[in-house]
Amino acid sequence: MKEWLDKHLKALNLTDSMNQAEGFCRLGYTEEEWRAIDVFVSIAEDIGLKVQRDEAGNAIARWEAEDSSPAVAAGSHVDTVKGGGGYDGVAGVLCGLAAVKKLKEEGFEPVIPIEVICFASEESSRFGVSTIGSKAMSGLLNKKEVEDVTGEDGITIRQAVEGMGLSWEAIEKAERPEKAIKSFIELHIEQGTRIEDAGADFGAVTAVACPIRLKITIKGQMGHTGTTPMGKRKDAFVAAAPLVPFISETALSLSDSNAVPIVATASTFELKPNAMNVIPGTVELGVDIRSVDDSLKKEMEELIRKKCHQLSESFGVKIEVKTLVHNPSVQLDEAVMRKLQQSGESLGYKALVLESGAGHDVMNMAAKWPSGLLFIPCKNGLSHHPEEYASIEDLEMGTEIIAQYLKNETSI
Amino acid sequence: MKEWLDKHLKALNLTDSMNQAEGFCRLGYTEEEWRAIDVFVSIAEDIGLKVQRDEAGNAIARWEAEDSSPAVAAGSHVDTVKGGGGYDGVAGVLCGLAAVKKLKEEGFEPVIPIEVICFASEESSRFGVSTIGSKAMSGLLNKKEVEDVTGEDGITIRQAVEGMGLSWEAIEKAERPEKAIKSFIELHIEQGTRIEDAGADFGAVTAVACPIRLKITIKGQMGHTGTTPMGKRKDAFVAAAPLVPFISETALSLSDSNAVPIVATASTFELKPNAMNVIPGTVELGVDIRSVDDSLKKEMEELIRKKCHQLSESFGVKIEVKTLVHNPSVQLDEAVMRKLQQSGESLGYKALVLESGAGHDVMNMAAKWPSGLLFIPCKNGLSHHPEEYASIEDLEMGTEIIAQYLKNETSI
Repeated sequence: MKEWLDKHLKALNLTDSMNQAEGFCRLGYTEEEWRAIDVFVSIAEDIGLKVQRDEAGNAIARWEAEDSSPAVAAGSHVDTVKGGGGYDGVAGVLCGLAAVKKLKEEGFEPVIPIEVICFASEESSRFGVSTIGSKAMSGLLNKKEVEDVTGEDGITIRQAVEGMGLSWEAIEKAERPEKAIKSFIELHIEQGTRIEDAGADFGAVTAVACPIRLKITIKGQMGHTGTTPMGKRKDAFVAAAPLVPFISETALSLSDSNAVPIVATASTFELKPNAMNVIPGTVELGVDIRSVDDSLKKEMEELIRKKCHQLSESFGVKIEVKTLVHNPSVQLDEAVMRKLQQSGESLGYKALVLESGAGHDVMNMAAKWPSGLLFIPCKNGLSHHPEEYASIEDLEMGTEIIAQYLKNETSI
Repeated sequence: MKEWLDKHLKALNLTDSMNQAEGFCRLGYTEEEWRAIDVFVSIAEDIGLKVQRDEAGNAIARWEAEDSSPAVAAGSHVDTVKGGGGYDGVAGVLCGLAAVKKLKEEGFEPVIPIEVICFASEESSRFGVSTIGSKAMSGLLNKKEVEDVTGEDGITIRQAVEGMGLSWEAIEKAERPEKAIKSFIELHIEQGTRIEDAGADFGAVTAVACPIRLKITIKGQMGHTGTTPMGKRKDAFVAAAPLVPFISETALSLSDSNAVPIVATASTFELKPNAMNVIPGTVELGVDIRSVDDSLKKEMEELIRKKCHQLSESFGVKIEVKTLVHNPSVQLDEAVMRKLQQSGESLGYKALVLESGAGHDVMNMAAKWPSGLLFIPCKNGLSHHPEEYASIEDLEMGTEIIAQYLKNETSI
């Protein structure tokens, strides 16, 4: 099994070695992503699955059963960010395929169908729009809203999709009826270290934290750094700076005093004019706030707005706070979570029940079908990074847990 | 006089109206600067001066006297920053020419020569190297050090100089012997509001504050904003942010407790990777420190270094502080300063004795000749800005003060 996982991990990453100094780059709706999906298709066919590509480019590998009831599905994606790792996404489709292979080798016969799904274009790196394939499958894709969204290369989502030989007009047909799927699970690397920190082996996820994102614009007054006395300045940077520790400290204290954690980050910053001899006139600060508790996110936003008001008064600058994104967090199906937890525990693995701080395809699937998310550890919590790493042992554990879950769900 | 000033102010700015929404753009060693210098030459010739261009492109307009003693010189520049105003530099050459015109009209005959100098390429906007013309004239131009410095357009200083028909090899010949000049004065807009704030009419400047500039690099650790708990971060932005108010507050308190002011500004900032869902891994902060008191600048630098050390320990990040620029401040000639002050006061104008927070051509001339700097007010202290403005009344006052000074210095 380890050997098979190692070989097909590399195959799905289109490589002979997982050590890539520059990482991987398979953006959504590009030739690179398509080649990796082709590898997924050929592995699936090798282990005896029948594969269909849908109108969004998703590949659905199906193990038919006599009873054509709704399928029990597992899946993830094979696209990456720029300079990303070879486990974010790939681990999920690889372990899904490996679980099917294991069940076949054991002579298992499911009474209802099993599917392994490879979703198209999960990462937001190319267009700033994430999980396009799973949005299409679950009926959440807003065609009009996203079709003209343009990547750095000047190509729109519509053009990119059509460039892969698909029809943008037909993409809505990728939506599947409720009765097509019984439940959906995704395996993903944790992208954090909570599993390790807790001395556990894997994670069973309760909910996916989706962000509130703010853009804070602070307008002070430019001036010559040499000729404007300290007491006569409206330096936008001086007014903005206290927000950064405030955001960090407030998130820490809210996490300490609530049942679930919250994270908040001042992650983007632009300073104008950004010249050595000019006092900063304008700064723009981007803030990312996440928690599975939406009211906690809202509380954090309100505290930031209050702080901005205070800073505006203290420094005589104009501060505008815009809510760029306000995505309610997604609660996963509790029964599916418990089944994943029990599947792992029955094999002797120690579970941690936790939340996901990052978004995944499962959050779209959860809008329509009972869905669950399984985490395996990744080294130092690193992801979206060339040094992203999960051990073959953990991929094997993930495979075993998925196999156990599928077996339980598709036996009589 | 007012009419003449207004007309020639526009002529030197190559325009019919000083209201330019986008400001002016006459970078050093470009056709635009050369056209403005041509206007300077033609005005000078119109009022009866003899003009020479030197090997650095400076224009020297001379009123010969029977006694060929060292000349009493006044001057400034006509180049601008991008989107700059029409007074920074131009005011100095305009008032110099106007003063000569006034003296000629009064029938004054100097016993020693008077010069009005228009220096080439004062601003650092094109190459990051300032006051090239006055450096060449005073023998401070380090040819080897600057010749390959390249502007945004990919052109080196050497190529730019040669592009104007000058010889880079010969540029050192622009240096003038000590005995060529008796004293030098420059009139400039204040680029601040201290004159107005003090209820004075003009400024007599004691010294030019030259900067210490620091580049502070803070290295933390990137991570996913959604999956990295608050307590497990090494956010470079969170570690860096306290520096910004620290720098501002420390400069304010040092100014309050010392005889001369100090200004310090966190003026440039780069955050990497600057992505909404990634914790900042590295930030680079540029700091500009100015005071005419070099020991005060040094004290400020040391306090910043100490604070960086503390922040590095507190946040577990690496902080490197590099001194990019350490230019000793320039003391102007006290006798010349007093004479400028008295010239103005004798005409009924109220003087403020102050320092210059910005660099000017005079700081190079001061290295070789007794030199002084005269400030006239500018609206709201704005400069390097399309709305930079000085009134015709203040240009007239500047003209009168220069004329008075030249008369005193070149009479028997």
